[in-house]
Amino acid sequence: MADQAFVTLATNDNYARGAMVLGKSLRNHNTSKKLVVLIGPQVSDPCQCVLKRIYDEVRVVDVLDSGDAAHLAMMKRPDLGVTFTKLHCWTLTHYSKCVFMDADTLVLSNIDELFDREELSAAPDPGWPDCFNSGVFVYRPSIETYGKLLEFCTEHGSFDGGDQGVLNGYFSDWATADIAKHLPFIYNLSSIAIYTYLPAFKQFGGNAKVVHFLGKTKPWSYTFDPKAKKISGSEQDVSSNPTYLLEWWMLYSSSVVPMLHEQYGDQTF
Amino acid sequence: MADQAFVTLATNDNYARGAMVLGKSLRNHNTSKKLVVLIGPQVSDPCQCVLKRIYDEVRVVDVLDSGDAAHLAMMKRPDLGVTFTKLHCWTLTHYSKCVFMDADTLVLSNIDELFDREELSAAPDPGWPDCFNSGVFVYRPSIETYGKLLEFCTEHGSFDGGDQGVLNGYFSDWATADIAKHLPFIYNLSSIAIYTYLPAFKQFGGNAKVVHFLGKTKPWSYTFDPKAKKISGSEQDVSSNPTYLLEWWMLYSSSVVPMLHEQYGDQTF
Ligand SMILES: O=c1ccn([C@@H]2O[C@H](COP(=O)(O)OP(=O)(O)O)[C@@H](O)[C@H]2O)c(=O)[nH]1
Ligand SMILES: O=c1ccn([C@@H]2O[C@H](COP(=O)(O)OP(=O)(O)O)[C@@H](O)[C@H]2O)c(=O)[nH]1
Ligand SMILES: [Mn+2]
Ligand SMILES: [Mn+2]
Repeated sequence: MADQAFVTLATNDNYARGAMVLGKSLRNHNTSKKLVVLIGPQVSDPCQCVLKRIYDEVRVVDVLDSGDAAHLAMMKRPDLGVTFTKLHCWTLTHYSKCVFMDADTLVLSNIDELFDREELSAAPDPGWPDCFNSGVFVYRPSIETYGKLLEFCTEHGSFDGGDQGVLNGYFSDWATADIAKHLPFIYNLSSIAIYTYLPAFKQFGGNAKVVHFLGKTKPWSYTFDPKAKKISGSEQDVSSNPTYLLEWWMLYSSSVVPMLHEQYGDQTF
Repeated sequence: MADQAFVTLATNDNYARGAMVLGKSLRNHNTSKKLVVLIGPQVSDPCQCVLKRIYDEVRVVDVLDSGDAAHLAMMKRPDLGVTFTKLHCWTLTHYSKCVFMDADTLVLSNIDELFDREELSAAPDPGWPDCFNSGVFVYRPSIETYGKLLEFCTEHGSFDGGDQGVLNGYFSDWATADIAKHLPFIYNLSSIAIYTYLPAFKQFGGNAKVVHFLGKTKPWSYTFDPKAKKISGSEQDVSSNPTYLLEWWMLYSSSVVPMLHEQYGDQTF
């Protein structure tokens, strides 16, 4: 449907690379929805060009420059910069319903059925499972909600310093109100969960639909040898994400790198 | 109510010490429910005596000796020994409703309101949050259910080798069916969660009602100096459970140790 969209966010070129892979993975699994990426003004021109080839809509969001309520909010809480940018997804009112996905997620199968859910649907956060993880959520764009979220943000801040704290504060009945708003965990499988409860991962992980590279080390923090198909580098041990990390890099090197080469020429990127 | 009970399990003297502290913590918070402990035949006489002073009912469960369906099941799946013992809690049909609690849990306030919930109510497991954690759950004793659980157990085994795998396999619609069966996480706060998402613990942890010392290192794995009120020892760093661990030990040394002394005399225990 033309009035439904997957939405992501990238404020810099690193997260933009994530958004490229995410967009590609959605296309590869034949989504019928529109793809939108919100970008910060720091994203380079070549990256913007590549994003435009993958996404239907690339929208620059500059909170500092916006002159709207977000600008005011930002002056009160400068620590919540990226959070305010993420909340901008509620302004996409030319869509009736959207699914927000972090730029560090990867889609493993068609997930268009998520649009059957209502705002705010999300999967539990491993760690504190009465909070939802804000890496994947279903929402309804609305200027009214956007305004209320900004207000909440400036008044109460974020208990974790990021968007997840704000959104859980605002949609605070998620844990207790409606089971239909609990997305199955396989729609936001954090690589962390593999190690905290391995038998459950072995039992249910095969059905994973979205993997989320949550935490400090992102796929783009590693380096990859496309010939040997081997990942290396980064402070964190590569072995902690074996298959999914390889899947991310395979998609990146096969589908994204060629587009980046066209933009950058022989320049390194 | 006389036909409702808190139920726990201890197959050896170590877990029996946990059960003593748990029982004391329930009494200290003025529960109006009965307290039942299932014990294995290995629990020593002195420990049984102390348990009898704290609990209304101390029931020896010897699967190997039972001659019932559990014995048969056990011969097929000897690996699931403690699991079969735990399932015995469904045979307590002189109660209409029960709350099972692991012997490594500690109650921080009155939780009698849990009896308003229906079978099977439990809190999500951090790690794989579409599974419930089987350390605290509301259930209805029933010989029929008991039989079905044993059957499920022998046919499908346990995906994690323990009772949590079996119970999640049997009550498999927990994640999707009824939000009222999702106990708030503060009724089964695993000490692990403190470190996986510290800001959430800081925000919500103050409301904790039950703490669960899940994992390899149990409170009784440490040693305690009651004069200095200091915990030490064990392979795991003490700092990982600061307040709750101290609370466990304070209760143990003030209320349980004197009773053990009466039973054991000057013998070490
Ligand atoms: O500097 C940043 C940090 C975050 N993000 C966006 O905000 C999301 C949430 O941040 P992140 O994924 O790093 O947090 P985590 O999931 O690890 O908690 C990212 O996926 C991006 O979409 C961004 O664009 N730039
Ligand atoms: O040798 C054992 C192991 C377990 N248990 C009982 O089974 C529960 C579940 O085991 P545990 O708490 O060790 O598992 P965890 O919560 O760490 O996964 C315990 O709390 C006890 O009630 C027991 O009595 N003896
Ligand atoms: Mn993320
Ligand atoms: Mn336990």
